Amino acid sequence: MKNILIIGCGLIGSSVLRAIHFRKLSKNIFIYEKSKKNILIIKKLKIGCQVINKFKNININFDLVIFCTPMSQYSKNILKINKFITNKTIVTDVGSTKELSSKKFKKHLKKNITWIPSHPVAGSEVSGAKHGNKDLFKNRWCVLIKEKNIKKKHLSILKLFWKKLGAKVVMMNPKEHDFIFSITSHLPHLIAYNLVKTATDFEKEKKYNLIKYSAGGLRDFSRIAASNEIMWRDIFFSNQKNIIFAINLFIKNLNLFKNDIKLKNNNKIIRKLINTKKVRKKIIQLKQDINKPDFGRF
Amino acid sequence: MKNILIIGCGLIGSSVLRAIHFRKLSKNIFIYEKSKKNILIIKKLKIGCQVINKFKNININFDLVIFCTPMSQYSKNILKINKFITNKTIVTDVGSTKELSSKKFKKHLKKNITWIPSHPVAGSEVSGAKHGNKDLFKNRWCVLIKEKNIKKKHLSILKLFWKKLGAKVVMMNPKEHDFIFSITSHLPHLIAYNLVKTATDFEKEKKYNLIKYSAGGLRDFSRIAASNEIMWRDIFFSNQKNIIFAINLFIKNLNLFKNDIKLKNNNKIIRKLINTKKVRKKIIQLKQDINKPDFGRF
Repeated sequence: MKNILIIGCGLIGSSVLRAIHFRKLSKNIFIYEKSKKNILIIKKLKIGCQVINKFKNININFDLVIFCTPMSQYSKNILKINKFITNKTIVTDVGSTKELSSKKFKKHLKKNITWIPSHPVAGSEVSGAKHGNKDLFKNRWCVLIKEKNIKKKHLSILKLFWKKLGAKVVMMNPKEHDFIFSITSHLPHLIAYNLVKTATDFEKEKKYNLIKYSAGGLRDFSRIAASNEIMWRDIFFSNQKNIIFAINLFIKNLNLFKNDIKLKNNNKIIRKLINTKKVRKKIIQLKQDINKPDFGRF
Repeated sequence: MKNILIIGCGLIGSSVLRAIHFRKLSKNIFIYEKSKKNILIIKKLKIGCQVINKFKNININFDLVIFCTPMSQYSKNILKINKFITNKTIVTDVGSTKELSSKKFKKHLKKNITWIPSHPVAGSEVSGAKHGNKDLFKNRWCVLIKEKNIKKKHLSILKLFWKKLGAKVVMMNPKEHDFIFSITSHLPHLIAYNLVKTATDFEKEKKYNLIKYSAGGLRDFSRIAASNEIMWRDIFFSNQKNIIFAINLFIKNLNLFKNDIKLKNNNKIIRKLINTKKVRKKIIQLKQDINKPDFGRF
C-alpha cells in the first residue's frame, strides 16, 4: 500500500504501526493521536511516520484507515476523515464489539466507502504506546466482519493485511461476534472487576487485611481487572444485551453451585470440576494457552 | 530434626520432601503415600527417604508429622498414626481450610499431642509428585494457627521449619483464616469453575464454537479451573459457611454492575473500574505478583 492512516496510537494502534513499519507494508504511514505522551514515544521509535495534528488541507489518498481509539471516540473521528477518503479507501477498526460500532460507521461514514470491521484478539492489561509490540498479532485470531455489498477485492486486501501482521483471519457476522466475545472475553473481565471489588468491600467491612494474601487466586483476577477503564466501559455499554444475558446465565450457574455446596452434593460438584478440566485441555490443544503450570510470579 | 513423616506426597507433600532433603532439615524422612505413580516419581529422585506401606510395627519417634493429603482423608490417617506418635511429636497439616480440619484433629488425635495447623499459600493448577519443587514455599506466606495450650517451644520449632523452607510465617486464628481465604482463594476458584461451565453451556446451547477464542480472558480462568477436583471439593465443603457468604456478596456486586450497564451509568462504572486498578497496584506493591504485563502464552 501507499498510504495507511492509523487513528489512535495506544497499545493496539502503536502495535499496528510497528508491525506495518517492520514488515514494510506501506510506503507512508500517518497517525492521528491526541496524547502527547503517546506521540513522544512514537517519535522516539524513529519509524518515520507522519503525525497529523488536524484534518485540514490534507491531500492524500489513503488506501487504508484503521480506527484504534476507544469505541466511544469513533463517531467524532469518522466525521473528521469523511472529507479525505475516497471510494478506493478501505476503512476498518479494531474494536472489541461489532454490532453497535458498525451502526455508527453506517450512520456517519459518507456513502460508497468500503467499511470492513476487524477485531484482532490481542492485548493485555496494560495500555498506551509504550507497551506496543510489532508481534502483538502473531498467531492471534483476527475476526473480520463481512458487511453487505463488500467487494471481494477489498476484503482480500484487508485479509492479506492482517495475515501479513501474523494473525489468523476468521470471518463472522456482527451478531455472532458479539455473542461469542460476550462469553470468552467480556464476561471474564466483568467478573474480574467484580471479584476485586468484592474483596475490597470485605476488607473495608471486616477490617481484615485480605489483599496481601491474594497469591492464592485473587492475584490472577486482579491482573485482568487492571485493564483500561475507558475501553472496557465502551465494551460493556456497546454489548449491553449479550453481556446481561451472559451475567444472568453465570449467576444461575453460581447459584446452582452454591446449592451443591450447601447440600454437600458430592457427585455433582466432582462432575462439574472434572468437566471444566476437560475444557482446559481443549484450550491448550487449540493453542490458546500453553501447558505450563503457573506457580505465580515473584 | 531426626525423623519427619510426610503423609501424602502429591504436589505439596513432595515439595516439602524435596525442600527438607535439599536443606538437610532431618536425618530421616519417611513418607506414607498410596499412589504408585507418586512413589515411582519419588524413588527416581533418589532422596533416600523411606516409604511406609503400612503403619504396623513401627518403632520410630517422629519429631514432626505433616499431613499433605486431601482434607477428606485426614480422619482415617489420624487414626492410623495415633499409635506411633508421642507427646514429643509435632503434628501439622497443609490444608487450605482450618476450622473443620482442626475439629477433626481434636476429635481423632490422641490426647497430649501437639497439634499446630499450617497453611502454606503455594500451589498451582497441577497436582502430583512430578510437579513438586524444593522452592515451592520460597517467599510465600505460611499461615500457622495458634491452637490453645500450645507450648511456645513447639510453635517455635514449626515456625523455624517453615522459615527454613523459605516461607514468611504469619499467625491467625482458624476463623480469621477461613474467612480471609474464602475471598482471596476459594471464591476465585469457584468463579473460575463456573465461568468455564457457563462458556460450555453456551457452546452447547447455541452451537457456537466459543472455546477457540478463549485468549481474550477465558483462557486465564480455565487455568485456575483446571485445579485438582478432590482438593477443591474438600475446600468448598469444609469452608461452606464463609464461601456461601462470599458468593452472595459477589452476586450482589454483579447484579449492581449489571444494572450500571443496563442504565449506562457512566460515572459509577468508571469509578468501579478505576478502583480495581488501584487494588492491582497494591497487590504488586505487596509482592503478590510482578508488574509485567501478560500478553498470553503461545
